[in-house]
Amino acid sequence: MTDTLLITNCTILAEAASSLTANGFLKAAGGVISDIGNMSRMPSAEGVMVIDARGKLLMPGLINGHNHCAMTLFRGLADDLELAAWLHDHIFPAEATHVNPDMVYWCSKLAAAEMLLSGTTTVADGYFYADSVAGACRDAGLRAVVGHGIIDFPAPGVPDPARNVETVERFIDAWAERDPLITPAVFAHSPYTCSPATLIRAKNLADRHKVRFFIHLAESRQESGMLIDPRGTSPVRHLRALGLLDPNTVCAHSVWLDDEDLDILAATGAHVVTCPQSNLKLASGTARVGDMLARGIHVGLGTDGCASNNSLDMFREMAMLAKIQKLQTLDATALPARQALTCATTGNAALLGLPRLGKLAVGCRADLLLLDLQAPHLTPFYNQDLLVYAGKGSDVHTVIVDGRIVVQDRKLLAFDLEETLSEVEKIARVLQRNTQPTNTRGQKNVN
Amino acid sequence: MTDTLLITNCTILAEAASSLTANGFLKAAGGVISDIGNMSRMPSAEGVMVIDARGKLLMPGLINGHNHCAMTLFRGLADDLELAAWLHDHIFPAEATHVNPDMVYWCSKLAAAEMLLSGTTTVADGYFYADSVAGACRDAGLRAVVGHGIIDFPAPGVPDPARNVETVERFIDAWAERDPLITPAVFAHSPYTCSPATLIRAKNLADRHKVRFFIHLAESRQESGMLIDPRGTSPVRHLRALGLLDPNTVCAHSVWLDDEDLDILAATGAHVVTCPQSNLKLASGTARVGDMLARGIHVGLGTDGCASNNSLDMFREMAMLAKIQKLQTLDATALPARQALTCATTGNAALLGLPRLGKLAVGCRADLLLLDLQAPHLTPFYNQDLLVYAGKGSDVHTVIVDGRIVVQDRKLLAFDLEETLSEVEKIARVLQRNTQPTNTRGQKNVN
Repeated sequence: MTDTLLITNCTILAEAASSLTANGFLKAAGGVISDIGNMSRMPSAEGVMVIDARGKLLMPGLINGHNHCAMTLFRGLADDLELAAWLHDHIFPAEATHVNPDMVYWCSKLAAAEMLLSGTTTVADGYFYADSVAGACRDAGLRAVVGHGIIDFPAPGVPDPARNVETVERFIDAWAERDPLITPAVFAHSPYTCSPATLIRAKNLADRHKVRFFIHLAESRQESGMLIDPRGTSPVRHLRALGLLDPNTVCAHSVWLDDEDLDILAATGAHVVTCPQSNLKLASGTARVGDMLARGIHVGLGTDGCASNNSLDMFREMAMLAKIQKLQTLDATALPARQALTCATTGNAALLGLPRLGKLAVGCRADLLLLDLQAPHLTPFYNQDLLVYAGKGSDVHTVIVDGRIVVQDRKLLAFDLEETLSEVEKIARVLQRNTQPTNTRGQKNVN
Repeated sequence: MTDTLLITNCTILAEAASSLTANGFLKAAGGVISDIGNMSRMPSAEGVMVIDARGKLLMPGLINGHNHCAMTLFRGLADDLELAAWLHDHIFPAEATHVNPDMVYWCSKLAAAEMLLSGTTTVADGYFYADSVAGACRDAGLRAVVGHGIIDFPAPGVPDPARNVETVERFIDAWAERDPLITPAVFAHSPYTCSPATLIRAKNLADRHKVRFFIHLAESRQESGMLIDPRGTSPVRHLRALGLLDPNTVCAHSVWLDDEDLDILAATGAHVVTCPQSNLKLASGTARVGDMLARGIHVGLGTDGCASNNSLDMFREMAMLAKIQKLQTLDATALPARQALTCATTGNAALLGLPRLGKLAVGCRADLLLLDLQAPHLTPFYNQDLLVYAGKGSDVHTVIVDGRIVVQDRKLLAFDLEETLSEVEKIARVLQRNTQPTNTRGQKNVN
């Protein structure tokens, strides 16, 4: 099989805010885009795998800037609860008992399946047993920046918190050059679960290995009062005082920021990944995304773990981002659709330090989607804004990651989905027997 | 072909808040549910069409409580604009030139296609050329409550506003007994486009014919200042002063209500259909749905016309309703998933005066969905809340309206979708040539 791919006869959206190009082609070789243009100058198809994409839109793969893949197991286990009750009465106890390398592998692979089928080609993850996360994404054919978790209490795979940073260093060493799809990273959970000393060691580790440093920051209104040994009056000021804010730091959520916090983030070059659906579902609030962008802060978009969403479909997330910012400002021109598309593509690519993702241009990685436009909800298709306001993950027909076709005709090619569904169902049945969650009324496949 | 249908081996969600029943069957004859229960007592399959629904969830069809079907033509024509600019610079001019019976027929049929494919079995519509809307829904096999529009200026099909009420009366007479799927209704656009005299005549017409009276009410903050000849200090008080609020009145949007307005709606028995996505996209705000439900007001859910949404997928709408209410109250327990499901099923059914819709019980109309649960994003499936937080229209595998299979294996059976897409594309091309909207960058099928 050739590693050269030629996609023909498609409408092309090369970048979030580009004009659409009708009647285009794209060529990729060795996982890299080697040519793109109008059919009138289509290159030779000899020795090349050709995909006729008539009636389809070719666009960059979407990037999910913040996830905890393995939490698919807890999706729908405990909905409509306060953050504290959700976390302490349901999620933490379930995690304490049910998180192991096997669970993380299968549940992350399930997340990979959902993401690939809905057009995500890269995910930034943060969890424990990161080795299993990385293995699952690699086996699924999904590009991933895999952050290994750090907290100051016993965690899955890290029973002794004194060893949390060294455990992550071993993970980074193991995956640094192992697979072209996988980039290791450091995920310090938050300033209310990590001491200043731990945060500083974690950040130094990330910088020393030139990998990204992720952290949950200012997710809830209560967080300022929960900081461990606070060095500032807000989570952002705390991190600045510790010297942790710079362009290698990616803050997730960042809902509760005042103007000074925003100025600090902008001045230091730290990035933000916003997770609007999770922030709504847990009633955390709405991030000031417009104010961030106005200050030049890089803003990306993520779903968060699907226990608090409960979907990993980035089309849904883009729609929510564009709409919720309009409500927050009561301004219908706020955060236009193309900005949401930018956050989910080049925005996330930039903050993950992977600038050759998120757009279609010669030299960029061949992470591509073909969308079927022949659908009632995409008709008429005046322009790409409709992808945000009416598009769905299920419109994704073909997915290519690093030049390899991983989804075709809405079916996963890279691995056996049935096996993954069945393994997760098995784990979920054990969880149900052990926890008997009060809101669980039934289960599929019981017959 | 028999008109008796037997669905076997499915998990059943009989009503929004019911427990799931594993291993069930449902029988329908003559468009009515005649039996429902456990497979252990399955009735004879002789002379009956059998659908084996293993691995699927059987649930009531969703009801879209507020739509302007024909506006599919304007979907994505003008996004990210202020309400006034959107309406006056784009939508009204486009409507003035491009709305005719043919356009309304094809564009409503396109809406019907989108709705059926995403699990909506009944729609409440409000537009002009309602005859074409009714014909399109009937031909598509979609149940519809079709409101004919009334405004006090020249409108499509009603050049002389002095005849607006009599035009609607002719429509009601024509459709009163014409088709089991179609229920005519009166749609007075709003108290800022209809005078008190017109509103009173329209309401009397609705009451005389025992059909529903729909009206846009308190959608924007500015509306109180725009009332024609105001008889109260708010849109709600204005309508009460005119004697228009009672259980035959359905108010759409109703975002800007104070406590007294809410008390008035509750005391009069008038209903509300909330349209959260449209209200966000146009930056109108968020309705006080929790406060309405606490007062016993019937609340339904609708997408609004898809020019301001831009999706007619009720699964998306349910997710937004549940999430936005949590933000509004900063309470993660607000508007639980099952309440959102209730609004979209029995809630809408009650306020439309169609109590035999929205649930699965002997004697109810056979408006049914089969959802494919074998999908990554629905695994694990602990309970029906996941339909709201992760379900998508594309999970709908089979749709039955009034006992007739109209969607099977995600394909429309009742009419030729290709023809509808092609007719709407033709109309859209003319619109594009005439309006050259500044944000239109391309179009599909140009090659």
